[in-house]
Amino acid sequence: MKKLINDPQDVVAESLEGFAAAHADLVAVHADPPFVTRAGGAVPGKVGLVSGGGSGHEPLHAGFVGVGMLDAAVPGAVFTSPTPDQIAPALQAADGGKGVLAIVKNYTGDVLNFETGAELAEADGVTVRSVVVDDDVAVENSLYTAGRRGVAGTVCVEKIAGAAAERGGDLDAVAAVAERVIANVRSMGVALTACTVPHAGRPSFDLPEDEIEIGIGIHGEPGRRRIPLAGADEITEMLLTPVVDDLGLSGGEQVLLFVNGMGGTPASELYVVYRRARALLSERGVEVTRSLVGNYVTSLEMQGASVTVLRLDDELTALWDAPVHTTALRW
Amino acid sequence: MKKLINDPQDVVAESLEGFAAAHADLVAVHADPPFVTRAGGAVPGKVGLVSGGGSGHEPLHAGFVGVGMLDAAVPGAVFTSPTPDQIAPALQAADGGKGVLAIVKNYTGDVLNFETGAELAEADGVTVRSVVVDDDVAVENSLYTAGRRGVAGTVCVEKIAGAAAERGGDLDAVAAVAERVIANVRSMGVALTACTVPHAGRPSFDLPEDEIEIGIGIHGEPGRRRIPLAGADEITEMLLTPVVDDLGLSGGEQVLLFVNGMGGTPASELYVVYRRARALLSERGVEVTRSLVGNYVTSLEMQGASVTVLRLDDELTALWDAPVHTTALRW
Repeated sequence: MKKLINDPQDVVAESLEGFAAAHADLVAVHADPPFVTRAGGAVPGKVGLVSGGGSGHEPLHAGFVGVGMLDAAVPGAVFTSPTPDQIAPALQAADGGKGVLAIVKNYTGDVLNFETGAELAEADGVTVRSVVVDDDVAVENSLYTAGRRGVAGTVCVEKIAGAAAERGGDLDAVAAVAERVIANVRSMGVALTACTVPHAGRPSFDLPEDEIEIGIGIHGEPGRRRIPLAGADEITEMLLTPVVDDLGLSGGEQVLLFVNGMGGTPASELYVVYRRARALLSERGVEVTRSLVGNYVTSLEMQGASVTVLRLDDELTALWDAPVHTTALRW
Repeated sequence: MKKLINDPQDVVAESLEGFAAAHADLVAVHADPPFVTRAGGAVPGKVGLVSGGGSGHEPLHAGFVGVGMLDAAVPGAVFTSPTPDQIAPALQAADGGKGVLAIVKNYTGDVLNFETGAELAEADGVTVRSVVVDDDVAVENSLYTAGRRGVAGTVCVEKIAGAAAERGGDLDAVAAVAERVIANVRSMGVALTACTVPHAGRPSFDLPEDEIEIGIGIHGEPGRRRIPLAGADEITEMLLTPVVDDLGLSGGEQVLLFVNGMGGTPASELYVVYRRARALLSERGVEVTRSLVGNYVTSLEMQGASVTVLRLDDELTALWDAPVHTTALRW
């Protein structure tokens, strides 16, 4: 295992320490239990937004804490759900008096721990609503998941719900916007290589030099199938087609096209995938009106990418365009 | 070789095609010969800024085209200098009537081709000045280089000179600011793994599973020495110490600390390195007042990082803080 780390047990804490020092203008990091908030804390009169999950997917979620997006993020150990005793104080810290929306990726541990965390926070007087993101069309049920997994589409939910909260919506309204994004966003990914969880010390799975895994999960969970290494255009079509079919796009729609890197794939390759995905959408009469390309929901150093499509309407587009000021997303 | 590409010969063109489509609001891509400009072209009355070099280091340089930074970028083939017939039209396209500053990384091919490109552009009436970035303290002379190599510090030169041009400085003033950054910025990197140039099809060098290369170049050129894999704190000290020594920092200075990812290293590890580098600077009485952490000058999918320190003064700090609106850097 080759990593720029010290003791594998200290990676998350040391990384958060660096993150806090580098971005003290934007975020504050609470060490014990670990969670990240905006530098100024909760915004009075604004619905709070909290997300979280296992570490190893950076910049998700701490990189999205800031104006126009999250109020707090809760990082678990690498590829491990955060615990209720982390989640509860993060929910409290995000509460500006109008309640808190928890954005949870659909993994059994995350869902259960966010439920318990919400109960603890509610016992202390915080009103909590939760939405569960399950955008991955690759598989129904999986290692760690009942139902579909939550993957890169989470960024769209956090950005757009964040904007809805920022403009002054109440908890019901912000939750409704989040649910609308969840209903309209789908993703699928491919792995070219495995990744290594620091405290495990060896790759999460074996992938032969001449094979790739279509429909991979962001923890290296099995996907749909293994196939021989293929060209980017062919792979992109394998990712995009089930996404478009599941969304039921028939032409005439406007969409956000998001090509996400898994961590170890160069930006140049992500743009090769984006180019082909956009052409395929165009062939189907679907117009790409917003784009995002880069490493936003990663799997440590895994090589691979995912393709996410979000069906837009005027309101979702306006909320996507609204200002955002976080360490990983800013406009 | 596992990559999300089609024909290796088409990677740069297809990637630029995707880049152009994804960011049409910010950039325009000229296909033949390939170069990238701001969407609106040259800004009348502003000194133009152009940089370029081999592809494979994305987002450098095309990701830094936009308001407050570059007017044009010239991508060569992967790890190959751009040609004079690309450079000349890019210089012309960046000329708003006040001349153009070319920011060149110190590689023999880049320096020669930018010289010839500048001569061609000057024959067509464009006034061109050039500065050469040589921030890598690892080695004097190297594969592809006489003198020191230009690496991640180039981002600081492009950002700060870009701000100097944007505020209306003339060509001499902008060149002087660029030279001042070059005089005050130093870097050193480490590779944990090699990378594979698409048209070569195999890793650029061999690095055993238990060794790392201290002082690596951004094309995988040899560094200072190979050592057994060590902890991040120890490695960070090996990178930072020669940088600080070469800058002659003795305490009391204010600096920008920039931890750059080589492409395949997770963000979490970059923050572990940042944390230690900042602590080491603090021990020497050096204050980190600005920070940058992320993949900005990459070597394809190489795992590793570099540490860059820029000695700041009030003017350089103000120019760093000035608004920038590019695909890779924005505030």
